[in-house]
Amino acid sequence: MDPDFSQLDEFLEDSGVDGYAFHDDDSNSDLYYLAGFDAPDPFFAVYTPAQTGVLVSPLEYGRASKAARADVVARHSDYDLQAKREEYGPRAAKERVLAEFVADLGCESLAVGERFPVGTADALRDHEITVEPDEDNVVEDIRATKTEAEIEHVREAQRANEAAMARAEELIRGADREDGVLVRDDGQPLTSEYVRQEIEIELLRHGCALDDTIVAGGAQAADAHERGSGPLPADDPVVVDIFPRSKDSKYHSDMTRTFANGDPSDAHRERYAVTRAAFEAALDAIEPGVTGEAVNQAVIDVFDDHGYPNVFADPDTESGFIHSTGHGVGLDVHEMPAVSQGGDELHAGNVITIEPGLYEPGEGGVRIEDIVVVTEDGYENLTDYEIALTD
Amino acid sequence: MDPDFSQLDEFLEDSGVDGYAFHDDDSNSDLYYLAGFDAPDPFFAVYTPAQTGVLVSPLEYGRASKAARADVVARHSDYDLQAKREEYGPRAAKERVLAEFVADLGCESLAVGERFPVGTADALRDHEITVEPDEDNVVEDIRATKTEAEIEHVREAQRANEAAMARAEELIRGADREDGVLVRDDGQPLTSEYVRQEIEIELLRHGCALDDTIVAGGAQAADAHERGSGPLPADDPVVVDIFPRSKDSKYHSDMTRTFANGDPSDAHRERYAVTRAAFEAALDAIEPGVTGEAVNQAVIDVFDDHGYPNVFADPDTESGFIHSTGHGVGLDVHEMPAVSQGGDELHAGNVITIEPGLYEPGEGGVRIEDIVVVTEDGYENLTDYEIALTD
Repeated sequence: MDPDFSQLDEFLEDSGVDGYAFHDDDSNSDLYYLAGFDAPDPFFAVYTPAQTGVLVSPLEYGRASKAARADVVARHSDYDLQAKREEYGPRAAKERVLAEFVADLGCESLAVGERFPVGTADALRDHEITVEPDEDNVVEDIRATKTEAEIEHVREAQRANEAAMARAEELIRGADREDGVLVRDDGQPLTSEYVRQEIEIELLRHGCALDDTIVAGGAQAADAHERGSGPLPADDPVVVDIFPRSKDSKYHSDMTRTFANGDPSDAHRERYAVTRAAFEAALDAIEPGVTGEAVNQAVIDVFDDHGYPNVFADPDTESGFIHSTGHGVGLDVHEMPAVSQGGDELHAGNVITIEPGLYEPGEGGVRIEDIVVVTEDGYENLTDYEIALTD
Repeated sequence: MDPDFSQLDEFLEDSGVDGYAFHDDDSNSDLYYLAGFDAPDPFFAVYTPAQTGVLVSPLEYGRASKAARADVVARHSDYDLQAKREEYGPRAAKERVLAEFVADLGCESLAVGERFPVGTADALRDHEITVEPDEDNVVEDIRATKTEAEIEHVREAQRANEAAMARAEELIRGADREDGVLVRDDGQPLTSEYVRQEIEIELLRHGCALDDTIVAGGAQAADAHERGSGPLPADDPVVVDIFPRSKDSKYHSDMTRTFANGDPSDAHRERYAVTRAAFEAALDAIEPGVTGEAVNQAVIDVFDDHGYPNVFADPDTESGFIHSTGHGVGLDVHEMPAVSQGGDELHAGNVITIEPGLYEPGEGGVRIEDIVVVTEDGYENLTDYEIALTD
């Protein structure tokens, strides 16, 4: 990974601030992207056009010295933390160390992400360092355009995803049917929990991690964030949404398929067919310069034509199309660009999902999702998995 | 789970603020503990002694209405987000919705966690709402005292942990030895990656998730945060540190064992024996009213007696005892109370780890860790797993 930080340099120059700071742990992908290092407990980092510095605990010092992209790797002890503790108490001591570290990097003003911790921001401000939340999410914006190496990471995660989806499909389509629910070879009901476990084991065997897999059937599938539980229904569609992260590269993929074992109702079949048409319309709309909003609108248009409500026209609806068409995928499973209302122009190198769906409370839902990369002349679909409700 | 929030009510009264606010996702355990609900994307919540309110996206509304402990579950659309967007733009619209929601809950001032996002804090401040970072981490402090139900959750996660540790031990102790490394039945080297994968599969089968397992052998084990990679060494100790989270309850456990297949050096054996003595000394020290610092000191005293350096006396040391004795465990794998320098008095209901270790750069490391609950008259060890370097 060799990201281009010139956009960040421009941002700092335009904003008139000296550096971009982080105080976070391995949940912050912007920090990992910039520092080339992460840790389970929060550490402090500052990027400037001249140099990048990280301030870590003694426990992380060895790993940071080896892994971090930083020019400066400092420990609290380099700033006499112990002596400062005795003089000022533990909290004020840490704040003084932070302020000195920032000063040593030549910064009097810092931009920070909007989710930078307010405790740290207020402490730096108390030490006369200006802290300005960055409303433009410039680092996430830079991350939205992937290098070839990053796209390859997503591709690898997607191969794992397809292996896991195949395992889920095999379980669902291969199940017997008894009293309206799916059953396994051993006569036990086939549950959401069991399919999820088998998906996650398959992902682990392919170097990926995930613990939020959605396997939701019947009426549960009407709630797009419901993970699903209990025996899976015969006939009704089962939504399987898998978004693994490669443990090695930390990049994600994301794919959804909807499977029915048996004979889904006409209403389910129609929702699936219309969702598929909306899905194709969205793909057809993708090219550089087209906005995420326009791609989202292509989906809405198809649903409008078939009389399904959507959350953009009716924010209160729990029926119809109740989420956005898609989102960027990379170090985070949800990142920029937005393929939704207000979504900006797409650029070559954006990795996005296309995932329309239709939902009906009490009945169920369907969703179809591929992951694609925007190219100079359209898009390349990174997904290689058949789309079919029934077999 | 039925937590006691009277300490929070007192904190708000003492601080003279009206409520305690959150703007975070499912990574924030304080929020989950208070709201009884979490979501993959950040949502806003306010606790007041009179009522608790959450403000969620349309996508989360159904789930929040069912799951949240909140008295008020609101959507952005309840505050005319759409109309405000048109009048003020998307950012200012969201800020106005937040401010109105806070006002509707009767709050003019809010306490927030130190990691509350500065962007949201500044926005609320712009709307004349006082936002004060809570330096005492009051919610984490409340969480440190577990109910019986919470202790049972940890116990269950620990049973999964023991099954996974048994799988790791079986692989390491059962391996053949060839050219200084451990080999599997099929002749392939037994790697850290393979043992980790098998641990994580075992955890999944027991309803737990984890993707940070440490399986570090030989010189790699000298770095206490190194996850480990490549073929495992014969003879040298292998540190296995497993800290699963129950997917159902979201509570963690934490355990470390160190295994050697073969004949570890005298230096390794001595480090193990002294670590074991320090481990026992720490356990002996635990009772309500004793500080985390005193328990940590019991460990340091044993290491001092045997001439091993420690990071509290020498902050720069990379040899000897380079981390704290332990930490609280619950919804977070690292939470209060600290069993370290500065650690406060322990109370009945605290769930803590005891995990001394000794490390030598270039050679390796050993660590022994159990998880215990502080009781009225001492402690109960929640761990049921033999402690032995060699078999």
